[in-house]
Amino acid sequence: MKTAASPHILPHLPIDRNAGVPLHRQIYDGLRRAILDGLLRPGQRVPSTRVLAVELEVSRLPVLTAYEQLLHEGYLQGRVGAGTFVSEALPDDALRSIPLASRTTSSTTSSTTSSTTSSTASNTTPNSAPRSRRDGGLRPFRMSLPALDEFPHTLWARLVARHGRALTPRQMGYGDPAGLGALRAAIAEHLRTARAVRCEAEDVLVVSGSQAALRICAAVLLAAGDRVAVEEPGYPLARAALGASGAELAPVPVDDEGMDIAALHALGHRVRAACVTPSHQYPLGVSITAARRLALLDWAAHRGAWIIEDDYDSEYRYVSRPLGALQGMDSRGRVVYLGTFSKVLFPALRVGYLVVPPMLRRKFVEAREAFDLFSPTLYQLALADFLREGHFARHLRRMRAIYIGRRAALLDGLARHCGGRLSVHNADAGLHVTTFLAAGIRDGDVIERMGERGLTATALSSCYAGSARRSGLLLGFGGFSERRIGRATRVLGEILAAAKT
Amino acid sequence: MKTAASPHILPHLPIDRNAGVPLHRQIYDGLRRAILDGLLRPGQRVPSTRVLAVELEVSRLPVLTAYEQLLHEGYLQGRVGAGTFVSEALPDDALRSIPLASRTTSSTTSSTTSSTTSSTASNTTPNSAPRSRRDGGLRPFRMSLPALDEFPHTLWARLVARHGRALTPRQMGYGDPAGLGALRAAIAEHLRTARAVRCEAEDVLVVSGSQAALRICAAVLLAAGDRVAVEEPGYPLARAALGASGAELAPVPVDDEGMDIAALHALGHRVRAACVTPSHQYPLGVSITAARRLALLDWAAHRGAWIIEDDYDSEYRYVSRPLGALQGMDSRGRVVYLGTFSKVLFPALRVGYLVVPPMLRRKFVEAREAFDLFSPTLYQLALADFLREGHFARHLRRMRAIYIGRRAALLDGLARHCGGRLSVHNADAGLHVTTFLAAGIRDGDVIERMGERGLTATALSSCYAGSARRSGLLLGFGGFSERRIGRATRVLGEILAAAKT
Repeated sequence: MKTAASPHILPHLPIDRNAGVPLHRQIYDGLRRAILDGLLRPGQRVPSTRVLAVELEVSRLPVLTAYEQLLHEGYLQGRVGAGTFVSEALPDDALRSIPLASRTTSSTTSSTTSSTTSSTASNTTPNSAPRSRRDGGLRPFRMSLPALDEFPHTLWARLVARHGRALTPRQMGYGDPAGLGALRAAIAEHLRTARAVRCEAEDVLVVSGSQAALRICAAVLLAAGDRVAVEEPGYPLARAALGASGAELAPVPVDDEGMDIAALHALGHRVRAACVTPSHQYPLGVSITAARRLALLDWAAHRGAWIIEDDYDSEYRYVSRPLGALQGMDSRGRVVYLGTFSKVLFPALRVGYLVVPPMLRRKFVEAREAFDLFSPTLYQLALADFLREGHFARHLRRMRAIYIGRRAALLDGLARHCGGRLSVHNADAGLHVTTFLAAGIRDGDVIERMGERGLTATALSSCYAGSARRSGLLLGFGGFSERRIGRATRVLGEILAAAKT
Repeated sequence: MKTAASPHILPHLPIDRNAGVPLHRQIYDGLRRAILDGLLRPGQRVPSTRVLAVELEVSRLPVLTAYEQLLHEGYLQGRVGAGTFVSEALPDDALRSIPLASRTTSSTTSSTTSSTTSSTASNTTPNSAPRSRRDGGLRPFRMSLPALDEFPHTLWARLVARHGRALTPRQMGYGDPAGLGALRAAIAEHLRTARAVRCEAEDVLVVSGSQAALRICAAVLLAAGDRVAVEEPGYPLARAALGASGAELAPVPVDDEGMDIAALHALGHRVRAACVTPSHQYPLGVSITAARRLALLDWAAHRGAWIIEDDYDSEYRYVSRPLGALQGMDSRGRVVYLGTFSKVLFPALRVGYLVVPPMLRRKFVEAREAFDLFSPTLYQLALADFLREGHFARHLRRMRAIYIGRRAALLDGLARHCGGRLSVHNADAGLHVTTFLAAGIRDGDVIERMGERGLTATALSSCYAGSARRSGLLLGFGGFSERRIGRATRVLGEILAAAKT
């Protein structure tokens, strides 16, 4: 696609009336150089002679003369009724000399979408935990994907358009770093009601997701040299976020009741905080028991430490009743609570939240502002309406019914096609099932084979900080139809049957 | 406004069939406790007995019995055709016992918008540099505000709605951490053309603004204990961002040509990076001269250090021709370039960008992902169209004409009303004018008086890290009509005339 002309090519034309060089020659030289340097590209439109003369504050004659020369030499070409463009076919093999050409060869990143207009990322790399987010693909059994096909698109687009049309200058300016008042109030009410979180609107900070929330927690709670307890196994990106301020990570084993509190105590007094996923431990799926929760709160109060509660995947629970948040059991203000709308609405929304104890509120608002000032206002407005008008509660109820079906399809398919080589460890909640592989089967190998067959998964072994690692697959079911899940389990069964043990 | 019912009140109802307590009593106790604890609030809707019975997997009878009792005692109230709600007037002074009430008294932050549905922040605090962003107000002479009244609202809303209606599941899922391919390509073309930046689409990373960009630079380029050179005076929030990874800030004086390179050299080899604002030094307004630019590039190459070029306010230049970016003069890959659309489009957009040398690309993409995964997709799609379809170039041209008028109104008003007590230091570019106050007049005092008269400004003295500070006012003119600016300068003149020297 051709872009419209930018009159802003002035940096390429440092015209100097006292240089002793004719103006038309300076304009010719500047444009030719910009084209040869690859700063103006074949097919790109250049300003009309009239506009350029105005911008340069010169008469039109030297501009016309320069353009005529460039057209004559083939650097520019005119198209009737469309304007003047840098030639698609440049003279004297000029493009070979473009120094920028060498740049593209040094790319070592997975982000090689280059300059196409496609937004689809490459899907060919196998899916390990931290890389999985980069993969724009929607292949089974990608984790953390909600049922995007069942999202109420029309309703959401209506709310977005409603506010998009009517943004006031104030709403377009700098927003409150803590978030839009209406959204904070709506989130507080939702969390009190659905999660038994004890909070007021002013305890809530709107951020761009749980990754940002964890980074802000690290900035406020952890100094360089402090230790922070993390779950082992745990969420690799959480470890990256918590270590960002120079804190040292202290992995604490997780058993069937949650984090091992005795091991936590044994770490001593340098541990300033513990980060836990009480509703649905990442990746094992267990829910921290009430006894363990109380012991964790006692540890924090006793040590003067903080608990960072990532209430990830708390919205959907299929087995036994949901427990309220750990935060709601805490009477001593030691818990910082965080969550995100990525998995209950859609990831590209980029809205999450923190609930912080009153004594930390000021520090958190300052750290949130220093992080990236504030969150985009349009989606905050639309989301506040979505919550207040009751659409969110309805959406959760509807999604839960859909996920019950998809989860059943996955468990059924695994039992039918993968039995003996794969065992389900936990499927109680959330959008993924945790499985273990039979002795001798390496999860990385299986995932590589899955990649060749159009599937993906997250390796359980990639979630460990230490060297004692279990081999298993984390299989997301949220984003795929029951039929697609059924077919995918059959393929997975074939891969497992062929796996060397 | 009343919210719709959430069926997700289950955490408050830990029903136990083996507890020896009748089910209706357990339901009554759970709801009453949630109301008394303030987790369910007066006026809030509760689920219907039918829905709650389904959610609890009990028969409807115990739920009906519990509701009847709560209605009878006044905890709940029914409204014909509307459902059942927590009573607005609760019995036996229950609300006095809500333990959460004490929380609101400990607020020490400026974010006290509380639980109202209004998005307007408090405007009563005087405006010092880091706090200025928190002030949602649009009072003259607030800095960094573009002409939001002249923004092409209808066109922008159309682009947003176009994509909002048509988001595909892929676009709703996890995006590329480096940004949408189409937007990166459009930004690269704009920067090559308008700023002579040497870049390809894959060198561009989309982030949420310059604050995020600076944080990501700090994460990649600076380790704890490293030193980073910053401009003195400089941008306070940049210092906060660059120090976030534990680096030590080394302020380097700025004179009329830019950063003092001899002073930079004198800092020695521990300096890993220098952060500069070459187009429009914040806050003094000077443009770094070509000689100083070359010396800076030599310093970086010689030391193996990095230059962080914040190309802030480069888009509008009123005096002399624009220089291209420092990045475009660098042949050794030592410059990380950053910019934002906050001031050329609108702040609540939250889109900025980094252009990174190829050898750092992989590290930057990883750091950007660890920061907050990726930027919201909808605005990336709309912005890519805005750039590619030529609206952006037209917008810049139109805005420039408007700012020429507003700048003239400010300079004219200052000359007429404030002469003698205030002198203009720089008005060459960007959206603010830098002024010095006459000896003995403290900028903080003037700004306090301005606050009483509905005006604001940023104190020049707040931009210094050291104790040698000049007193002056940074006066933004972008966001206010010529008439409003004229009136505001008259008021400022009255304040200055009354100021103690």
